[in-house]
This record gives sequence, structure tokens and C-alpha cells, in this order.
Amino acid sequence: MPAETEAALERAVDSAARHDRLFSLRAANIKQSAVRDVFDISIRPGLVSLAGGSPYLKSLPLEDLGRTAQKIIAEHGLEALQYGGGQGMDELRRLVCDVMAAEGIEGADPEDIVITTGSQSAQDVAAKVFCDPGDVILCEDPTYVGALNTFEAYQVDVVTIPMDDAGLIPDELERVIAELQAQGRSIKLLYTIPSFNNPSGITMAADRRQRVVDICREHNILVLEDNPYGMLRFDGEPLKPMRADNPDDVIYLGSFSKIFAPGVRLGWALVPRHLYRRFYLACEAVVLCPSPLTQMLVSAYLTEYDWRGHLSSMRSLYRERCDAMLGALAEEFPEGVHWTTPDGGFFVWVTLPEGIDTYPLLYTAIDAGVVFIPGAAFTPSDEPSNKLRLAFSAVSPEDIVEGVRRLAPILRGAIEQNR
Amino acid sequence: MPAETEAALERAVDSAARHDRLFSLRAANIKQSAVRDVFDISIRPGLVSLAGGSPYLKSLPLEDLGRTAQKIIAEHGLEALQYGGGQGMDELRRLVCDVMAAEGIEGADPEDIVITTGSQSAQDVAAKVFCDPGDVILCEDPTYVGALNTFEAYQVDVVTIPMDDAGLIPDELERVIAELQAQGRSIKLLYTIPSFNNPSGITMAADRRQRVVDICREHNILVLEDNPYGMLRFDGEPLKPMRADNPDDVIYLGSFSKIFAPGVRLGWALVPRHLYRRFYLACEAVVLCPSPLTQMLVSAYLTEYDWRGHLSSMRSLYRERCDAMLGALAEEFPEGVHWTTPDGGFFVWVTLPEGIDTYPLLYTAIDAGVVFIPGAAFTPSDEPSNKLRLAFSAVSPEDIVEGVRRLAPILRGAIEQNR
Repeated sequence: MPAETEAALERAVDSAARHDRLFSLRAANIKQSAVRDVFDISIRPGLVSLAGGSPYLKSLPLEDLGRTAQKIIAEHGLEALQYGGGQGMDELRRLVCDVMAAEGIEGADPEDIVITTGSQSAQDVAAKVFCDPGDVILCEDPTYVGALNTFEAYQVDVVTIPMDDAGLIPDELERVIAELQAQGRSIKLLYTIPSFNNPSGITMAADRRQRVVDICREHNILVLEDNPYGMLRFDGEPLKPMRADNPDDVIYLGSFSKIFAPGVRLGWALVPRHLYRRFYLACEAVVLCPSPLTQMLVSAYLTEYDWRGHLSSMRSLYRERCDAMLGALAEEFPEGVHWTTPDGGFFVWVTLPEGIDTYPLLYTAIDAGVVFIPGAAFTPSDEPSNKLRLAFSAVSPEDIVEGVRRLAPILRGAIEQNR
Repeated sequence: MPAETEAALERAVDSAARHDRLFSLRAANIKQSAVRDVFDISIRPGLVSLAGGSPYLKSLPLEDLGRTAQKIIAEHGLEALQYGGGQGMDELRRLVCDVMAAEGIEGADPEDIVITTGSQSAQDVAAKVFCDPGDVILCEDPTYVGALNTFEAYQVDVVTIPMDDAGLIPDELERVIAELQAQGRSIKLLYTIPSFNNPSGITMAADRRQRVVDICREHNILVLEDNPYGMLRFDGEPLKPMRADNPDDVIYLGSFSKIFAPGVRLGWALVPRHLYRRFYLACEAVVLCPSPLTQMLVSAYLTEYDWRGHLSSMRSLYRERCDAMLGALAEEFPEGVHWTTPDGGFFVWVTLPEGIDTYPLLYTAIDAGVVFIPGAAFTPSDEPSNKLRLAFSAVSPEDIVEGVRRLAPILRGAIEQNR
């Protein structure tokens, strides 16, 4: 090795040792790192990926959307390509009110909306604005891995509330709050995905929703309602969000990723008026402003296109894929395995017999040509999990069936070994 | 008032009182709030705004860029509108290496780059990854108000290092580090804008750059080099960034906002390899991924357009505007007022005699039809400041002269009152 290279190498090793001590307590992200590895693997050719929750985009009118983008830049480029306001553009905030009205939130005021860089960014800001290190955020068990990573980055303790088939259990919520308060803990937020929860696909029953808000209000806990899938109910009208009748106690998060396209990186937060200014200033401190260009593209999509018609065809497509998955699971999966039956969204949640850890099974599954996300990703606990998440949104019905066929013998083997 | 309205109002007031206690320690953002007010005011018709540092966009080929965007969506829409990787797209990361080579950073590896949602987002992530509450970030006095807001959101103490006309003073850096270490403080980062500092326009001299890095290395402090204006040097080649010869000790932040357009909301971080994985996972936890659509637009701009030629014409334009401002200041401003003479960038920094607070002068200036940013915004100190920032980037030479003419009598009046 030339002396110069050797010196550079030594210096790098030395920097690594010194700088390792610089990391903050919040920089671990171990679960996110594992999930990232799964996604990296899942793009290998020939693999059936039931891992990622990407929406189906092939039915978007790409030619027309291209012309719309062209017009935006040619005619309004000085606005589209310049800095914008931290709250997001007025037109899009007005249109978001229409979208929310279709979800069951009537009479929202554009002045209470912040456009965010995806709703991931709104989760990040909520933790930043409301939580000090050591504070508690409550969430469903299981919950979205991205939210867990985001909250833990603020040195917050995430405490889970059990769910059943009708969603988060209010009595359990009361019990956990009482326990935490007896320990003198400061509980700031309840983070919930009430409709078609990621990863479980479970929906919080209508009669539980108000009760959950009432419990939180009584204990001075803000509800952070994350509703990216709410309009993707397979049949009938969307369930009324918790925010609808509780404007002062719920921060509502919406996303264009599932009703339009993730690549625009846009979502929104509807914030109680008395919390709005500090919330939006914190959003601004993170990204200055959301992209005016992609905001204008979304505004055009919501005004010039039949977005309701497109959404309706998406709901049919996802229902078909969900049915294909549920059918294949019933056909292929061994006795002793259970799963949820979602009314919408992207995910089915599978439970194996107690004692089986789904994490090592992932690597057997990869060898067999199928990928899923192990259940341990979706809780703050470090215990092994006997659950796994299957996503049906991004894969054709034929591939879903093939993927389930590849997975079934692996589960069967694990159950036999576990006896 | 109908009973229902009254009840709703009472409930809102009650929520406000309860929820006020929920805010975290980091949610104040008082200076950001004040700056925001100035920007809101500065769009009033008839006002000359010397406040905002927006780049000049009118010479961008908007028709052509529109057609480029159209083609991206029509031909690659399934990629442009879908989720992308958290590190950013491979092509853009390769192109960023070419851009940095033009700035003087040779041989950077695309694997060490994260594309971020503007470089604001990279500042946010650096504070998150490296700082625990109570840690210290060092920065220049004065420094970028957006970085101050971002750092303070992590309950970090920002400590300033004095500058002179050649930038941050190395001896002062050593003195402050020694003082802080004697107090047992943990210093994590030095945040610096070495070229055409915002707000002062001052550039750190070439011979100081290595010395500053060496001091930081010796004390195990990472350098966070923010270089959005580096390529906007009016004459000659860009000064070599601190990162160029110090790959293991500097996190380098670049931005497309000033060399292309802010509306795409894209920047990048070049991260020492041993710090990379945790840095990029933290980026991912904030926004999942930068927009593939706007990334592809920037990639097309860097490959299909003469971006170097456009940059060169921008440098001439900004030089002309800077000259117009410096000429008007010499002509109009009263004795006792001093200002910097930048070699590039967007800003001139004006110093009034001791004892004058520029913050109240802002309101007189607004009445006279001109806006600036008071100096107090650019330091973490709560003391009044006798400085103010003037931006020449977004205003025509005629309007710059008019703005300075409107401001001059206000400064003259303040000096007379101060005698």
C-alpha cells in the first residue's frame, strides 16, 4: 500500500473512532435499517415483493399529466420554481378542504392547513413541537414503522395500546394512561391510524372513535390522526375521521401519496387553530416550504382531472388484489395461521402460533423468492414477533397468489419445528 | 351569541389553555416568527423588498424546462411519481459529483451523497443525528437565521464565534472552544457558511479554511460546511471548499436553490463515509425520500442544458446588482454607517453606530416603502443589534437604488437621535 493511501486509511479509521462518540442518543434507527435492507432486497428480479406499500400508478393519465406540468412551468414557472410560503399555497389548501369534505370533515378552514413534505414530515414536526426527551407518545400495537423511527428520533418513549378486530381498545387506553400517570410520566400524543391501520389493515370502529378522543381530551393528550388510506375503503363511504367532530383536540394528517402519487412528496396537516402558528413555523424550519412545482401539479390534478373517478377505480383494483390475497391465504396457509380481513388500504396482517419468530423466516423466504416485513418492525418492543405484514397494493393478483404459494411451505416448516 | 357557538368558543378557549402546556421547550421560534412577518409584509405592492434572498429566475428557459418535465412524466412517470430511495436517485448523485468538482471538490463518491429536501433539511438532520439537548453548536456571528431556528429546535445551545473581513477568526474559535470545554460542555458541530456568508456576504479567507478544520479536528468537532452560494463568486474561480482536502471531518451541504431553482426543493449532503448510514437513515425518517419528479428535472437540467453558461450569466447579473447597491450606499448612506463588500452571493451587511437598534427602524422603513431584515435575526443573542441585512439578488438595479434612497433618511434620523 502506498504510504499516502495508508495515511489516508489511518486517518479515516481514526475519524470513525472519534466521531462515533458524536452521535446523539437518537441516532440508532435499528429497525428502520432492517426494513431498508428488506426493501433493497425486494427489487431483485424474480422476487415477489409483498413487502413495500407502494400505490398502483399505472392507471394515472401520464401523457396528460406531463402536459399539465409543462404548462405549469412554461406559464407559471417563476412561481413554480421559486421559494413559496411555509404554509403551502392558498389554492392547494382550499382544495384540501374539498378532499377532506369527501372524507367526512366538513367546514375545515384553509387557514388551519399546512402543506407538508409528505405526512411523514408532519409526524416529525408533531414530535418536535410537542415532545421533550422522556415524554410519552401512545400508539396502536402494531403501528407504522416510519412513525416509530420518527418519534424515537426525539428521544420520546413510545408506549403501545393493544388492538382487537375493531381497532384500539378504549379500556386498554384508559388503563395504560392511568399506569403512566401513576408513574408521573408526561403523555403528549396519541398517534393513531384509525382506518386500515398500517400494518394490520384493522379499522377502528365508528363507536370507538369518539370515546378514544374523549379519553384523550380528559387527560390533555392530543390525538394525531394519520389517515393516508381513509378514502381507500373498498365498499361504501369512508368512515368519519376522528377530527370531524373534534376540531380542537385532533391534528389530522392527510397524504396525496395514496390518492394521487407519492413522487410529489406532499401531504397536509389540519391543525387546531390555537396550535397552528407554532406547528407551521416548525414545518418551515425543517424544509422552508413544500415544492411549489409539485403543489401546482397536485392542484391541477384536483381541479382539471376526475380524481374521484380515478380513486373509485383504484378502490376496485385494491379490493381485487386484497381478495386475491385472502383467497390464496385460505387456500395455501397451514392451520394455526391467522390473518386480518381489511375493508380497505394496502395490508394484511398475519399471526403465526406463539413461539415463532418471523424475522429469521424472512431470509428463508428470500431464498424461496418472496419478501414480507417481519412483525417486529411495527412495535417499539425488542421482543421477537410471531407476526408479519403482507402488502397487496403493488403486485398483480397472479403474483400475489404466487408469492403466497412460495411463503406457505416456509410457515408450515416453522410451525412443525415449533411443535 | 347562539348557545351552540358559545359552547364551541368556550371549548376552543379551554383547549387552548390546556394544550399550551403541551408544547415542547423547543417550540418558541420567536425570531423566525419575526422574520416571517417581514416576508409577509414585503410582498405589499409598491414596497421595495431588500429583505428576501430569492434567486433571479427570469432567465431560466421556462418553455424548454416545461417540455422536459412533460417528457419525464409521460415517459418515466411510474418512476417520477412513485416513492424513491431515501438516498436520492443514482443519476442525480453522480451529477452532484460533477457540480462539486466544478466547486473544487474532486473525487467525491456518489455513495457518500444524500439528496435532501433543500439544504435546510440537511441542517435539521445534522442537528438531530449529532446533538442531544444541551450540546453546543458553534457558528459564525452573524449566521443564517434558518439554521439558528433549526438548531434551537433540538434544544441545542448555539454559541457564536466572531468574524472579521476575512471570515471566522481562528484564534477566537480556539478561545471559545477552550472556554466551553473548561465548563465541561459538549461541542458537536461547527456550522459555517464560508463563502459569501448569509447575512454578511463575508468570505472566509483561503488560508483560514484549513486552520479552522484543523482546530475542529483536534477537538473532535465536526464541520458542517453550508455552501449554497459558493459558485456565485462574481469573478474568478470558486474558493476551494473546506471539504475538498478534509473528507473525513467535514459534512458538506450543497443546494440547487441558487444554481438552478428553489422550487424543486433539493439540496445534498456529502457525508464522511463512516457517518453516512446513520445520516441517511435520519433523512429518510424525516421525508422518506426526496421527490423523484423534481430530482429527474434537476438531472435533466444538469445534462441537457448549459447550466454552466446560465450560472455564468447569473454571476454577472448578481455582480451588477451588488455594484448598484454598493454605489447607492456610498452615495446615499450617512457618515457613521459601514457595510461589507461581498465577492459573491446575495447580501450586504450594514453596521450602524453603536447604540442604535435596527429592529424598530424596520417599521419606519416599511412606512417609507422599503424592507430589510434587522440584524438581531442572525444571532442567537437576545440583545438589540445595530446591524441589518440588505439582499440585492431579487431586485432590479433601479429598485435597489430606490430602496436605498428610501432607507437613507431613516438611518440618518436614527444616527441624529443617537447622538
